[in-house]
Amino acid sequence: MGDITIIGTGNMARAIGTLAIAGGNTVEVMGRDQSKADDLAKALGAAAGEWGAVPAGDIVITALLYDGVVPVVVEYADALAGKVIVDISNPFNATFDGLAHSEETSIAQEVANVAPAGASVVKAFNTIFRNVLEDGRPNVFIAGDSAQAKASVTAFIESIGLRPLDVGGLKMAHWLEGMGLVTVGLAGNGVGHGDFALGINEFAG
Amino acid sequence: MGDITIIGTGNMARAIGTLAIAGGNTVEVMGRDQSKADDLAKALGAAAGEWGAVPAGDIVITALLYDGVVPVVVEYADALAGKVIVDISNPFNATFDGLAHSEETSIAQEVANVAPAGASVVKAFNTIFRNVLEDGRPNVFIAGDSAQAKASVTAFIESIGLRPLDVGGLKMAHWLEGMGLVTVGLAGNGVGHGDFALGINEFAG
Repeated sequence: MGDITIIGTGNMARAIGTLAIAGGNTVEVMGRDQSKADDLAKALGAAAGEWGAVPAGDIVITALLYDGVVPVVVEYADALAGKVIVDISNPFNATFDGLAHSEETSIAQEVANVAPAGASVVKAFNTIFRNVLEDGRPNVFIAGDSAQAKASVTAFIESIGLRPLDVGGLKMAHWLEGMGLVTVGLAGNGVGHGDFALGINEFAG
Repeated sequence: MGDITIIGTGNMARAIGTLAIAGGNTVEVMGRDQSKADDLAKALGAAAGEWGAVPAGDIVITALLYDGVVPVVVEYADALAGKVIVDISNPFNATFDGLAHSEETSIAQEVANVAPAGASVVKAFNTIFRNVLEDGRPNVFIAGDSAQAKASVTAFIESIGLRPLDVGGLKMAHWLEGMGLVTVGLAGNGVGHGDFALGINEFAG
């Protein structure tokens, strides 16, 4: 299908990379630790890119801890020009009942503030536990201001067999981050033994 | 099952009242306009209470527009002592991409701030469109600080054939209100032709 670059070498990078490859996408992995990027790329059957270089993928997924996303986008700078940047992070506070940042924003919006010309930001995947991404067929909520970028991300999500659900503009990323909190809250209350994801349930009209 | 009082005579009062009666609950309806309360009570096969009096129900559902909930709880004052107050409101801003109030709170938390001694507040039902409540089997997210109050509301929700999902303490009501926004956002993007609700999807472990 498409060309995807994943920045990050952790569990979510591995889970999304595995699905992306299985879905027929060309995948590149980038990590600050080149040996980790090489290892993950090899494990996935992907290419390893060079940290900070122009990503090969049109879609660049920042599979990083939330406090790393904005600094990395700043560091990549013009290397991300024209790219669709997908932020998957969850900025939880220490007690998992609020967000770590000012409640008026989201990591995705902060990324948009520092992204280079022509880049678009889409929030996606943050409401899904890694194990569910590996084993389930969860819905994927997306938010973004660029219809074109959301169309690209929608095609990618469909290529990996999942259903994208467009909740609106990038401002809604704040509420998707809240839904990350809700997901953790449900799991903490024993819902679904952790094998669930927020999604929609449909009913006959 | 239980004794439920619904304060309000609008569409949500009617939808929840219908389900409550069908679920075997004793239902009382209260409205500032007594004739509307009488009419709805008659239509439901419920009792009509007197505005401002001590509700017959242990659970009191405020089926009111969001900006009416806190004033009505203040007006009822000690008449609500010891009750479980269920706030179902959605405080949307004019553009449906944010909440109408300070983003650090929720209507449910504001209700808790003015509720009388012994009353507990539970947020519930706000993520569900009325038509889905009438025709579907949506999940019902709940949040509250009192385990006993949540157990009462859980029993009520189960009595009407729906699945309660406990997301945590009352502070999480803020994020449930955000999920109301997400629901509207999804509908605005054509998801499920409006015949859907946010809920969980479970996967084999």
